[in-house]
Amino acid sequence: MTTPVSNLRINGDRLWDSLMDMAKIGPGVAGGNNRQTLTDEDAEGRALFQQWCENADCSMGLDQMGNMFARREGTDPDALPVYVGSHLDTQPTGGKYDGILGVLGGLEILRTLNDMDIKTKHPIVATNWTNEEGTRFAPAMLASGVFGGVHTQEWAYDREDAEGKKFGDELARIGWQGDEEVGARKMHAFFELHIEQGPILEAEGKDIGVVTHGQGLSWTEVTITGRDSHTGSTPMLMRKNAGLGMARVLEAVEQIALSHAPHAVGAAGHIDIYPNSRNVIPGKAVFTVDFRSPDLSVIKDMENKLREVASAIAGQMGLGITFEKTGGFDPVEFDEGCVTAVRNAAERMGYSHMNLISGAGHDACWINGVAPTAMVMCPCVGGLSHNEAEDISKEWATAGADVLMQAVVETAEIVE
Amino acid sequence: MTTPVSNLRINGDRLWDSLMDMAKIGPGVAGGNNRQTLTDEDAEGRALFQQWCENADCSMGLDQMGNMFARREGTDPDALPVYVGSHLDTQPTGGKYDGILGVLGGLEILRTLNDMDIKTKHPIVATNWTNEEGTRFAPAMLASGVFGGVHTQEWAYDREDAEGKKFGDELARIGWQGDEEVGARKMHAFFELHIEQGPILEAEGKDIGVVTHGQGLSWTEVTITGRDSHTGSTPMLMRKNAGLGMARVLEAVEQIALSHAPHAVGAAGHIDIYPNSRNVIPGKAVFTVDFRSPDLSVIKDMENKLREVASAIAGQMGLGITFEKTGGFDPVEFDEGCVTAVRNAAERMGYSHMNLISGAGHDACWINGVAPTAMVMCPCVGGLSHNEAEDISKEWATAGADVLMQAVVETAEIVE
Repeated sequence: MTTPVSNLRINGDRLWDSLMDMAKIGPGVAGGNNRQTLTDEDAEGRALFQQWCENADCSMGLDQMGNMFARREGTDPDALPVYVGSHLDTQPTGGKYDGILGVLGGLEILRTLNDMDIKTKHPIVATNWTNEEGTRFAPAMLASGVFGGVHTQEWAYDREDAEGKKFGDELARIGWQGDEEVGARKMHAFFELHIEQGPILEAEGKDIGVVTHGQGLSWTEVTITGRDSHTGSTPMLMRKNAGLGMARVLEAVEQIALSHAPHAVGAAGHIDIYPNSRNVIPGKAVFTVDFRSPDLSVIKDMENKLREVASAIAGQMGLGITFEKTGGFDPVEFDEGCVTAVRNAAERMGYSHMNLISGAGHDACWINGVAPTAMVMCPCVGGLSHNEAEDISKEWATAGADVLMQAVVETAEIVE
Repeated sequence: MTTPVSNLRINGDRLWDSLMDMAKIGPGVAGGNNRQTLTDEDAEGRALFQQWCENADCSMGLDQMGNMFARREGTDPDALPVYVGSHLDTQPTGGKYDGILGVLGGLEILRTLNDMDIKTKHPIVATNWTNEEGTRFAPAMLASGVFGGVHTQEWAYDREDAEGKKFGDELARIGWQGDEEVGARKMHAFFELHIEQGPILEAEGKDIGVVTHGQGLSWTEVTITGRDSHTGSTPMLMRKNAGLGMARVLEAVEQIALSHAPHAVGAAGHIDIYPNSRNVIPGKAVFTVDFRSPDLSVIKDMENKLREVASAIAGQMGLGITFEKTGGFDPVEFDEGCVTAVRNAAERMGYSHMNLISGAGHDACWINGVAPTAMVMCPCVGGLSHNEAEDISKEWATAGADVLMQAVVETAEIVE
């Protein structure tokens, strides 16, 4: 392996211009993007990416999940490619960078290597994974999940959006269903650049997050059952207030997560109250507790503690309570060699860096199961993401793509 | 005033049959009723009530708010009438008795007096107030509020339902807009029989609630503002979790109400969380705190304490918080003479009774401002109301209407 020289850098202006051009497709209502998966806008974004890749003399592969693979040849016909990418789809009120930076960062590597006429032993493949966001067709990371053997393609095709349209039908409709068997490609390694979607790098003043682990996730849907009754005519001591029971469980969730500081987190983002009327004491509260940790045993501990503490709260208040595990994945430990390549690249190029644990799921988490994988993160303003106001600076994007490029090129091995 | 003999009783079977006949109009999906105000079903229910009143030789008056007045003449042409009634409209998933028992209990008085050929000095007027429920056109008790001078008729006509239809237009459409000026009628007294809509009478094993006061109400809409952020990638100590802030305020609401035991109550029935997504820490929580007490100073104390404690909670958590008073009415003290008439009637007829404070608003609360007023309550199963499963026994209905009748007839003065 030949280490790239530290002054081998991507073209930050060109990367930024491409980000801005892509953001014109499926603009949001508040300066961000609405380019949800398998919409006409998604098709338009894919076509633009393909055009750019072809202009960079790359050939485009397309698999049966719509995953796109733009290949720059290597010198060794037997060497497996190094893959690099992320996703072009956005949340309904998403930003311009979540996912897109990783795909166009991959494209920028191909362009830079062309500029400099640098050859690598391993091919390099810039990748766009279909439906990372999962807001139109749940779950998130659907196509990388099929690629990584987590889901079957048949199951993925059957996922329905809110209007009852199926993933498979919509993929065919927009014209991006390929012939290639999903997951048949073998990878030498996979790298993903992504905005942090959290506040740590900005707060710590670091350019680069070297992602060592992905947090595991556990979703528990809690249903507390009380009795609907009139807010005026029911004495305090005769109430079965499911909303108050929920409030107490939410406090317990906070305390459980804090008891596993600093890496464990817990919160409820989704809460439904029934009948949700100002003069009716809530008879039912349904909410999903989201616990995360890089340590599987901590996740199990938090799940168990939630059931124990919340059951006691409900018991004391005369409320019914049930728990259903509705989602989750195990923590991910990224490949040591790939992680080291990212850290060394940041160090070599003079970018400040720190280790990070990814709190969000990413395509890299599923690909890590089938290939050596690592992630590079750059800061985002205020940690804001999944929001049209999501923002990064050109300098942050450039630093992230520089480090991505050096790690990828080192792994793909420059041929002198 | 001549006290009626204790064996003057209404016909409980006839009252029950009328309740069951009325319940056939606008049946619910689960055994109750959906006969919302100013719908075709409301018109059909009104027509049946009018037919019954005319069959009882009463004349029907109708005012510009659609309030119905079925008059049985008295012997003294100068004596003001005693009014008795409630409302025929229901919640969208309402019961067969909430309101209806009070109207048909009034009708049953007229029928009973006819049966026995009893004359009273004062006329007796059985009344149906329009739109007590307020679920289609907010607020509740709209037409009795106009009658009592709380709202202007112009404002009431402009109230809109969820489809943008105006109260005034819908009243005209169903054909029940009268010519009579609203509130022009002067009353000698007003009595209302209603199911308790709470659990106290059943729990205490009492037949009759003698309603001495109506609780005052204060609605405060609380908006807590944090920062939407990813449940995975935001460290616990960098969160601004509006949902957790809400949870802590809900606990404070409980403690504030309990600190004014036994008559004060407090809860939040309506809660909205934004963006309400399982993997986004809530950036905003909006909820309405409902405080009630028969003592105005206690209501003011609770409002002030809420603002103080919730502001402190928000301050500690780095959250924004605003408060808006969105509704309320002062406590009501019913007329001592009318209340005594109700209590004496229960005592005389051998029904067990206790004083009650009405936790819910009722038409009687507004009429109390323009005429001496009292209420009679009967138990309902499990305190359940605003629910299709709302239930009472024929015996409870009979006892309530018996007491109502004796109080009304004593006040209207039997002519020997």
